[in-house]
Amino acid sequence: MTPAPAPAPPITRLLISCPDQPGIVAATSRLLTQAGANIVRSDQHTTDPRDGTFFMRMEFDLVLSPPERAELEASFAREVGAPLEMQWRMSDARVRKRVAILVSREDHCLLDLLWRRRRGELEIDVPLVVSNHETLRDDVESFGLTFEHVSVERGRRAEAERRLLELVHDAPVDLVVLARYMQILSGELLEALAAPAINIHHSFLPAFAGAKPYAQAKARGVKLIGATAHYVTERLDDGPIIEQDTVRVTHREDVPALMRLGADIERTVLARAVRWHCEDRVLRAGDTTVVF
Amino acid sequence: MTPAPAPAPPITRLLISCPDQPGIVAATSRLLTQAGANIVRSDQHTTDPRDGTFFMRMEFDLVLSPPERAELEASFAREVGAPLEMQWRMSDARVRKRVAILVSREDHCLLDLLWRRRRGELEIDVPLVVSNHETLRDDVESFGLTFEHVSVERGRRAEAERRLLELVHDAPVDLVVLARYMQILSGELLEALAAPAINIHHSFLPAFAGAKPYAQAKARGVKLIGATAHYVTERLDDGPIIEQDTVRVTHREDVPALMRLGADIERTVLARAVRWHCEDRVLRAGDTTVVF
Amino acid sequence: MTPAPAPAPPITRLLISCPDQPGIVAATSRLLTQAGANIVRSDQHTTDPRDGTFFMRMEFDLVLSPPERAELEASFAREVGAPLEMQWRMSDARVRKRVAILVSREDHCLLDLLWRRRRGELEIDVPLVVSNHETLRDDVESFGLTFEHVSVERGRRAEAERRLLELVHDAPVDLVVLARYMQILSGELLEALAAPAINIHHSFLPAFAGAKPYAQAKARGVKLIGATAHYVTERLDDGPIIEQDTVRVTHREDVPALMRLGADIERTVLARAVRWHCEDRVLRAGDTTVVF
Amino acid sequence: MTPAPAPAPPITRLLISCPDQPGIVAATSRLLTQAGANIVRSDQHTTDPRDGTFFMRMEFDLVLSPPERAELEASFAREVGAPLEMQWRMSDARVRKRVAILVSREDHCLLDLLWRRRRGELEIDVPLVVSNHETLRDDVESFGLTFEHVSVERGRRAEAERRLLELVHDAPVDLVVLARYMQILSGELLEALAAPAINIHHSFLPAFAGAKPYAQAKARGVKLIGATAHYVTERLDDGPIIEQDTVRVTHREDVPALMRLGADIERTVLARAVRWHCEDRVLRAGDTTVVF
Repeated sequence: MTPAPAPAPPITRLLISCPDQPGIVAATSRLLTQAGANIVRSDQHTTDPRDGTFFMRMEFDLVLSPPERAELEASFAREVGAPLEMQWRMSDARVRKRVAILVSREDHCLLDLLWRRRRGELEIDVPLVVSNHETLRDDVESFGLTFEHVSVERGRRAEAERRLLELVHDAPVDLVVLARYMQILSGELLEALAAPAINIHHSFLPAFAGAKPYAQAKARGVKLIGATAHYVTERLDDGPIIEQDTVRVTHREDVPALMRLGADIERTVLARAVRWHCEDRVLRAGDTTVVF
Repeated sequence: MTPAPAPAPPITRLLISCPDQPGIVAATSRLLTQAGANIVRSDQHTTDPRDGTFFMRMEFDLVLSPPERAELEASFAREVGAPLEMQWRMSDARVRKRVAILVSREDHCLLDLLWRRRRGELEIDVPLVVSNHETLRDDVESFGLTFEHVSVERGRRAEAERRLLELVHDAPVDLVVLARYMQILSGELLEALAAPAINIHHSFLPAFAGAKPYAQAKARGVKLIGATAHYVTERLDDGPIIEQDTVRVTHREDVPALMRLGADIERTVLARAVRWHCEDRVLRAGDTTVVF
Repeated sequence: MTPAPAPAPPITRLLISCPDQPGIVAATSRLLTQAGANIVRSDQHTTDPRDGTFFMRMEFDLVLSPPERAELEASFAREVGAPLEMQWRMSDARVRKRVAILVSREDHCLLDLLWRRRRGELEIDVPLVVSNHETLRDDVESFGLTFEHVSVERGRRAEAERRLLELVHDAPVDLVVLARYMQILSGELLEALAAPAINIHHSFLPAFAGAKPYAQAKARGVKLIGATAHYVTERLDDGPIIEQDTVRVTHREDVPALMRLGADIERTVLARAVRWHCEDRVLRAGDTTVVF
Repeated sequence: MTPAPAPAPPITRLLISCPDQPGIVAATSRLLTQAGANIVRSDQHTTDPRDGTFFMRMEFDLVLSPPERAELEASFAREVGAPLEMQWRMSDARVRKRVAILVSREDHCLLDLLWRRRRGELEIDVPLVVSNHETLRDDVESFGLTFEHVSVERGRRAEAERRLLELVHDAPVDLVVLARYMQILSGELLEALAAPAINIHHSFLPAFAGAKPYAQAKARGVKLIGATAHYVTERLDDGPIIEQDTVRVTHREDVPALMRLGADIERTVLARAVRWHCEDRVLRAGDTTVVF
């Protein structure tokens, strides 16, 4: 039996990044405490106490009506956010993120996400699954979800991207997940999405970027293969890394065996990255990430 | 070349445990900020936001003369510690912990600790190494350290423990490390030490507690072997666990091979536990630990 | 896209255990080579070259009609098996094992096996899924498989076991997999099954045998949790271990989080054990196993 | 106490690579068995049963006088090696390999090798340690070993390499280990060494080849760092990989912390690679290796 989920407490998450200086924790926690919040978790990181960037994530426990919530955000902006030059956002942990999944023909990452969602492990809504192939329609529909086929024909990528964008905007979504979607997204599309996108790459980046990473790994004779979940940027296979993992292999594994072992790592790494993103645990820090 | 250590900043560490309630972070950070401190790292954990125990570790950056330091501690005790029923302690990160190491005849854990210390990885002082055998005298002395032989003869354990206690008290030390010391310490001795003791057990506890864990593991046919570093209590092989790790084995490894593979895990796990303890990152939580 | 499986070559697997003595490899490989076989893989293990037990697994490539196959087996028995006191069996790698899966209400191990089978990763047939609950009927039937509900009522276990046995014998099957089946099988049933049974236990055995292992692990404060796949014997949670793995946890994970993390390990470990068993890679060696 | 080593049995190791074809195992094992050998371990690998390269390693137990040994090798060459177009070698497991270690100023890989050797874990002789710095002289001499300083001055590399070569040839040695030796060896030197060379690279190759891999890893924000032991070829950081491993890191680790964590992986990976090479378990296969 799936463990019965505890009733979700009224948790709010606050994510901050700002220039480091004394007093950030004190100012933030004083304002929240005065508002009646109980801080139940706090993580922070500074790249350098003297001159660096400060990152913080707090979870606090506070029942607020929508107007009270707006008031809290306004006073936080005024009294803490602006004076300390923060980039910040608050989110209600009980509001599930809306996620669009893009996929080609490999099913392992997609099905793992959908299965974790159904099981209550991944508290997301999936209003949309898009594929450039029909292959996985039945699988997706068996979960009661919407499957859209947007074929990407040679020379007509712009058209496909317009259709994709339309679907994503109609959904609408907070996050786009590329669960082995074997098409490159243009910079224009990425910008127009207005939501972050997470990709799973089937190698331990930066090793074996590009095509056929398992064949590259076999040729190079590596003793571990891996997978990498990263935010998508215009630079292919080069966005900020959220999560990676590896598994040991030997000379015995041929390319199909590497693909099979790798598939297990891919689905696990992608599921972690999506989970962490949707729990507001990932902050971008230039070309890297802070994962609390 | 060993990486040149950066000049240690004037970091103070504050460790707290107390009944959870709103306002702990705010009260603590306000007082520290008013004293001029910059909080550079903060970790917290609560066993339950409603009714649990709250644990926190803060690192802050503050130059204080000894009287100023005493004053800060007094005002913290009065304004924060007492009202919130805290157990707490502050420690200066630049003051190296003094560690006594007890060992029998196996050298791998001992030498790894001494080597890491010499290399600057483990910022501890080792005023004393005690063994119930002469075997490792030369090794210890080659590091310029004091080696004392306290033989433990059958039926004369009390006498040996008195001698051991005398040496430890004369050192004196903040921590006792049992680096494969194959004698049981009596409850009286543990209490009289007046310092915590960390032991390395050569199995993944609670599996294979007691003697000859690698032989037990071979007989049981496990596919992973492990090691466990834990605080020593009167109950043998049963104190709060600080760190554990495992390594994969197969039917090919006989007991000596398991011992060899296990030795690598033992030394690594013990070094991590000692390091974390000496960085004030470990809090006891009943029969378990919180490691920040 | 799932990697297209290569056409299965006509591989035969030979598994041997016998008292160790000189000449086993030579006698075996000579007979096979004379029969025209090409040995494409060979693994062996001896517990002791002087006085131990010898285990070997060979894969050879040979096209045989059924009568030729029978003849090969007869000559192997006569010329090699009997003189060297071998226990041995040959199996055709192209013949898929028939597997019955028993499950209660947790779906993660079951679905992972079915999904791997559908994807071509696990070359097994599943003529039968039995559960003591109705919960997972739809899931199983959505894969086009037979689901049977055999409720186990207090005081009427014998009746339930008779029904279970009937179903298994009617299937019939080569292997029974307990994919989180929360009922104890009697010694009589195990014997009557006439097929090996593999269980997944949700701890790193022998630690935390028995009920509620994740709650036990939390109380003990371990830093790694694990899962164990083992052959089922009459002694609960004590049969020969096929595979184990662990994952790192901290004080932050509560029991539901441990269950969630553990579920990932359980399904992976069970899938490996079933795969290895069905590839004839596991030999029992007393209370342990040899996994080639 | 270090486990007492069992008296080494008279084991001979046979390493083979040849074009795959039926009958290799049979021919080899028949000849060895007729000579009175008991094959106690056999591993084999084929890149493709139809058209590939076949690799095999056998350990057999046989007491031979030197003339008997020469005779066995001659008959093996005549009856098996030549007809099957084998590259092969036999080696006596009781004869310790002679290893020269080259090092610059980092001590962790060097000391770990020397410590494992002294402890009986690594059955090698070390007739020579060479460094381009004086830093580690005392450490090496405290193990009773020969330390030679060969400084490498700008523009005078050829001279340094001549001196190095002289020392290595005088030793003489079976293997050269670069235990964090921060100089590039010329192709001429590599050829003149007439012994294989193993290097440890402080990254998970092919990621972060070249200089300052930990700084590269930090900038790229990877979530795992690693180390790679490989045979040295003329192409820098590009020889056949023998062993690799990784360790998990987070945004918290700065470059010195990555270097510290990485040092543990480096020394472990290098020690495994040296051990496996010296146990004749590594065969080169083009740009990759087979490790039995």
